[in-house]
Amino acid sequence: MFRKLSILLLCTAVACGPLSSQNQTEDLTRYVNPMIGTQEMGHVFPGATVPFGMVQLSPDTDTIPYAVEGKYTGTVYRYCAGYQYSDPTIVGFSHTHFSGTGHSDLGDFLIMPTTGKLQLNPGTAEKPESGYRSRFSHGTETATPGYYRVALEDYQIAAELTTTEHVGFHQYTFPESDDAHIILDLTHGIYNYDGKVLWSQVWVHNDTLVTGYRITSGWARTNYLYFAMVFSKPIENYGCRNDETQVYRGFWRKFDQENNFPEMGGRKLKTHFDFKTEAGEKIKIKFALSAVSTEGALKNLYAEVPHFDFERTRDEAREKWQKELERIRIQATPEKKETFYTSLYHTFINPVQYMDVDGQYRGIDHQIHKAEGFVNYSVFSLWDTYRALHPLLTIIQPERTSDMINSMLAHYDQSVHKLLPVWSHFGNENWCMIGYHAVPVIADAWINGIRGFDPHRALAASVSSASYPLYGNLDDYMKLGYVPFDKSANGSSMTLEYAYDDWTIAQLAKSVGNGEVAEKFMKRSENWKKLFNEQTGFIGAKMSDGSWKAPFDPLHTANEGFIEGNAWNYSLYVPHDVPELIRKIGGNERFTRYLDTLFTMYLPDKYFAETEDVTREGLIGCYVHGNEPSHHVPYLYNWAGKPWKTQERVHQIKRTMYLNKPDGLCGNDDCGQMSAWYIFSSLGFYPVAPASGQYAIGSPSVEAATIQLQDGKELRIKVENYSEKNIYVQRVEINGKPIRDYTLLHSELAGGGELLFKMGSKPMKKTVK
Amino acid sequence: MFRKLSILLLCTAVACGPLSSQNQTEDLTRYVNPMIGTQEMGHVFPGATVPFGMVQLSPDTDTIPYAVEGKYTGTVYRYCAGYQYSDPTIVGFSHTHFSGTGHSDLGDFLIMPTTGKLQLNPGTAEKPESGYRSRFSHGTETATPGYYRVALEDYQIAAELTTTEHVGFHQYTFPESDDAHIILDLTHGIYNYDGKVLWSQVWVHNDTLVTGYRITSGWARTNYLYFAMVFSKPIENYGCRNDETQVYRGFWRKFDQENNFPEMGGRKLKTHFDFKTEAGEKIKIKFALSAVSTEGALKNLYAEVPHFDFERTRDEAREKWQKELERIRIQATPEKKETFYTSLYHTFINPVQYMDVDGQYRGIDHQIHKAEGFVNYSVFSLWDTYRALHPLLTIIQPERTSDMINSMLAHYDQSVHKLLPVWSHFGNENWCMIGYHAVPVIADAWINGIRGFDPHRALAASVSSASYPLYGNLDDYMKLGYVPFDKSANGSSMTLEYAYDDWTIAQLAKSVGNGEVAEKFMKRSENWKKLFNEQTGFIGAKMSDGSWKAPFDPLHTANEGFIEGNAWNYSLYVPHDVPELIRKIGGNERFTRYLDTLFTMYLPDKYFAETEDVTREGLIGCYVHGNEPSHHVPYLYNWAGKPWKTQERVHQIKRTMYLNKPDGLCGNDDCGQMSAWYIFSSLGFYPVAPASGQYAIGSPSVEAATIQLQDGKELRIKVENYSEKNIYVQRVEINGKPIRDYTLLHSELAGGGELLFKMGSKPMKKTVK
Repeated sequence: MFRKLSILLLCTAVACGPLSSQNQTEDLTRYVNPMIGTQEMGHVFPGATVPFGMVQLSPDTDTIPYAVEGKYTGTVYRYCAGYQYSDPTIVGFSHTHFSGTGHSDLGDFLIMPTTGKLQLNPGTAEKPESGYRSRFSHGTETATPGYYRVALEDYQIAAELTTTEHVGFHQYTFPESDDAHIILDLTHGIYNYDGKVLWSQVWVHNDTLVTGYRITSGWARTNYLYFAMVFSKPIENYGCRNDETQVYRGFWRKFDQENNFPEMGGRKLKTHFDFKTEAGEKIKIKFALSAVSTEGALKNLYAEVPHFDFERTRDEAREKWQKELERIRIQATPEKKETFYTSLYHTFINPVQYMDVDGQYRGIDHQIHKAEGFVNYSVFSLWDTYRALHPLLTIIQPERTSDMINSMLAHYDQSVHKLLPVWSHFGNENWCMIGYHAVPVIADAWINGIRGFDPHRALAASVSSASYPLYGNLDDYMKLGYVPFDKSANGSSMTLEYAYDDWTIAQLAKSVGNGEVAEKFMKRSENWKKLFNEQTGFIGAKMSDGSWKAPFDPLHTANEGFIEGNAWNYSLYVPHDVPELIRKIGGNERFTRYLDTLFTMYLPDKYFAETEDVTREGLIGCYVHGNEPSHHVPYLYNWAGKPWKTQERVHQIKRTMYLNKPDGLCGNDDCGQMSAWYIFSSLGFYPVAPASGQYAIGSPSVEAATIQLQDGKELRIKVENYSEKNIYVQRVEINGKPIRDYTLLHSELAGGGELLFKMGSKPMKKTVK
Repeated sequence: MFRKLSILLLCTAVACGPLSSQNQTEDLTRYVNPMIGTQEMGHVFPGATVPFGMVQLSPDTDTIPYAVEGKYTGTVYRYCAGYQYSDPTIVGFSHTHFSGTGHSDLGDFLIMPTTGKLQLNPGTAEKPESGYRSRFSHGTETATPGYYRVALEDYQIAAELTTTEHVGFHQYTFPESDDAHIILDLTHGIYNYDGKVLWSQVWVHNDTLVTGYRITSGWARTNYLYFAMVFSKPIENYGCRNDETQVYRGFWRKFDQENNFPEMGGRKLKTHFDFKTEAGEKIKIKFALSAVSTEGALKNLYAEVPHFDFERTRDEAREKWQKELERIRIQATPEKKETFYTSLYHTFINPVQYMDVDGQYRGIDHQIHKAEGFVNYSVFSLWDTYRALHPLLTIIQPERTSDMINSMLAHYDQSVHKLLPVWSHFGNENWCMIGYHAVPVIADAWINGIRGFDPHRALAASVSSASYPLYGNLDDYMKLGYVPFDKSANGSSMTLEYAYDDWTIAQLAKSVGNGEVAEKFMKRSENWKKLFNEQTGFIGAKMSDGSWKAPFDPLHTANEGFIEGNAWNYSLYVPHDVPELIRKIGGNERFTRYLDTLFTMYLPDKYFAETEDVTREGLIGCYVHGNEPSHHVPYLYNWAGKPWKTQERVHQIKRTMYLNKPDGLCGNDDCGQMSAWYIFSSLGFYPVAPASGQYAIGSPSVEAATIQLQDGKELRIKVENYSEKNIYVQRVEINGKPIRDYTLLHSELAGGGELLFKMGSKPMKKTVK
């Protein structure tokens, strides 16, 4: 008995799956290329971070302000992640970034090493010598998970970065210099503007320890961020310049605050720390963050990096990535692996852990809270990520999913509005985009077996979030059943997404036995029908008086009731009731024609110009993969009895829109949503309607895969007869049982075992029943 | 035996002292007139507070900014306490004030009730109807300890204020109105300027609870103040206006943030809460403060005012004052009692308790700390108050003195400079004035028997504060033994005060057995001699090269090395070695002539113009009582063998410079220092050199007094043959033992018992030996 068990264990762990033992110890981090998506629209950053780490330490290549003299510059959009691959200079290395967003913030605490004449302004890319920035070239650049390296050519400094969750670890190798500087520019920021820094403060405690903080008012309206910085080498001299023009100096004017004065404060503060260096001498900096206090930052620093061994921290960072990437092991070509693991890497960057090692964090009520029994996360780009990122994390990061939901519930508790997060980051709600999409994340997690939170509290929070009249025209929505165009230019998008969100509330309510709420929100989930215009066959924009907005142009994104999508795309946004949508559009054949047209039409330039955040390459016909509202669309053919068309389109998207090069992402990665689409679609299924407990079958692009599930279970995916041409699914089996209707149930997947795809080069047009 | 003891106790408590039992239960608060000193130079506020309470809720009569377009207005100086008696209008009622300062700040959280058209600007005194301010007249004004009342004529609203330590309790009696408002103007402040508010935030939780905070950068460079506000009547509507011109609004622009939106934030925020009122209807507001968090403010609120009984809180406030005022009970005319108890009231206003009910407070490191085993105090105007206020508190507030010193030591711990407070308030060091005068406060307390702090830690803090090269030219002082004029225009004042402070360090060191420190600082205490110019007979200003600054004018205050005093006055600032000073000036007779001249000369206008913070009435000859450096001077005659001249001058000062009228104070009360001088001088003695353990005998102006001492002891003062004419002391005895050299030892006083003065109408020129 005992012996038998041992063999069984061995079998499970090593030999029986589609992956050999060799694969299991393979270094997966070498497939990750953080440079992918750093050019143009991807908006990811190439710097160092650990999975879901608060510190994301990365080079910023420009500092275009959000607005100059009150006017939006537009160009700031290029710098959502601080970095653009085609830029010739690096301004410095800052500690906080978003991954793939289309609006931005952060860039906190820029460090830049220089030599020679001290300059405290960044200067311009055209004339780098006018400031502290430096030229660089990609030839000297290395980016791997948890590590970044570049040569700063103007100063002959080799810069290396690694991190822990809360600590940025810098290692700068200097030339010989009597005039070496580390600049800490507290005015630097992403989406900066004159006045963004409400206050900044720096204390020099001794010749190696510096602490401080700044409060900014940007996309996060009040962002408190504290730091503790330790140098490996004693500071020779230090100082600052405060470019404020405020008049009140008080009796601080008694001091020469610019030179070796250990208490520096102001709204436009740039500080510098000066050294003498030998040739090849390394100056290391440990730079810890906290949203609570400098004391919190110090705790984080000493807990995570109680040494000055840069290589050790770098290796630990890589090991953390290896551990997370192993959650899905695949067999595929090296090229595919690169795309796959870079995508998986991108799904593990946001949200971030937003609390100190002692559990303290800053809530959206600006108060200090302690996370009891969970890890507090922030950076929830929910309009994007409820679609695929969170459903993916539900499967492969069940513990973090519980933590994230508990973080959302804490946010709800702290919200004066009693709302779950919409788009929240760093102790703030920034109100970006639409919907109450924390709700489907929670419902999907609960329905799919995540149990680390209280579903009744979660249901109450969901209902409250769906019922607050001041938010997103919910007053009108609750009265009329739709958001009228005359009240909001995005009213139709809102209505469709609310209807879906409402359906997920009903699912959660049903699951916890609350029939009353289930019934109410099931009814609300039908609201999308109120905007289906039988005359045009599209979802339209309706006025408060019930009339349709006219004229109507289904190709326009702007000013037709939608956001980041036109009527052609958005009309398909009824993920929770595709059969009824098909009926409305006129049955399977007309619906198929609708989808075919969408994927093949040409979108004239005047309409393309309205499409946000994507390149032309992000389009297939009028289908826009670079924006989220259509991410489920290629899978809809399944419902019309044309699964092979789903397989074709999914294959096409993977092949053309996820490329292994800096400009390889066709649109913003959006905190991992684009990447999560790729992960799901590579594995052969996709959550068209999160919280349904179902996935639509697509076309896998791996030869095999093993997914770590909750409670130590594993799902092994085997793709028989796989090749680039054999993109058509002939048969799907879960644990030997054929899958019907191209629908994989989460309950089938959750127990682990084997998901078998049999592929072929011809469409399987016979229905598998 | 038992019986005898009872009689003895009875005797002590009731009959034997100079005060009858009737006196002991007398309502002393009725002698306090908070209006005294509210006109012109006194700079005290007339509003409501409890002893040493953080909330000091008082009407502000104007809002002159500190600077307009970068230029100092000057007129702001009139409004150090927010109130000027001669003003015709009240802008509103704010919760934080200083008492008697000559530079200012605070005025946090202005509340103003109005009716009719909503106006969110204060308007002007010339045209009150242009804003929310109201006309008022003193006829409707009542100010008693812990209570203030006034009629706001423009709105027919009776305003009443009372407080606890952390809570301002407002009671507004409205006329009938459909349009009643409570305005909370977060831009209001004392010593305001454009940009002072770094951030402000208001949350409306429900129809009676509002919380929020603001961070300001003024005299306190970063002042965090949180509030919780509860209304007795549900809010009908509310809203705000944010006059910021900053460009970045983010997605908050989606909301109508001006009307009934519960999360208001900005840098120029004015909020209003609207009601309908019946005729005579009262709206009550409880407004709690915290330097920690809104949660802290709520804790404070519910701990201190768990009800809506305004009269109860008002009565409790009065009782608190009665209890504190009873620390000194006197027999005197009602007029004298009014001056005396108003002065005593003024000595119990600053410092303030600066921590929440749970002990949390914000340190000068901007971090949250918990006061373990002490009450944390703030507002230390030490250049003023080390002279008499703290020595007075050492005698009559021994527990609070320990707390204050522990607060100073916590400040030292949190100081990146490792300095004790100089002039600190609300979690900030503002660096006003000169010296390290926390040191004599600590030494005086220790020498005089205060034991609630660690003297070794205190000595280390004192030595550190006296040795920090960046502060107050201590680098030069430690090198040269004086602060040269070419390094600081106040160098001579600094040198004199440092020398005295050094002497107190030596006293403390000696007392705790640290001979090395004692010797070192005893030597430093002689540094004043380096600036005594034998040629002029005055303390002069010396250059770095050792030459005297020339030309020299002993009447100039400005630009002669001094601050708030000229050479005539400052040359007498050697409180720790008067005999040596007398010797240097040329012996008793020449010294007496010096003093006589000082008190009788006429100070020409051009010199008077340089004298800060005083009226002409604040001068006797060239002696300036309105400024502190000479407060000990009238007592110096004692050392020259002319005690009757001390008695004359002290009597004259009390009679002419402490008057029972709004403009009755000849200079800034300076957080109680001026008043403490009066209390000491009324009781017949004064601490010329705190930390000496000695007091100089003056001329008492009470018939009798009982002072509560540490450990339940009492000192009874009996003034035989007292009258307005009998100002000359004939004999002084402590517990029957004659006092020699007109010097009362603290050790004699500390045990309690009786201090007997025998008075006469003629100077006693015979030395009492």
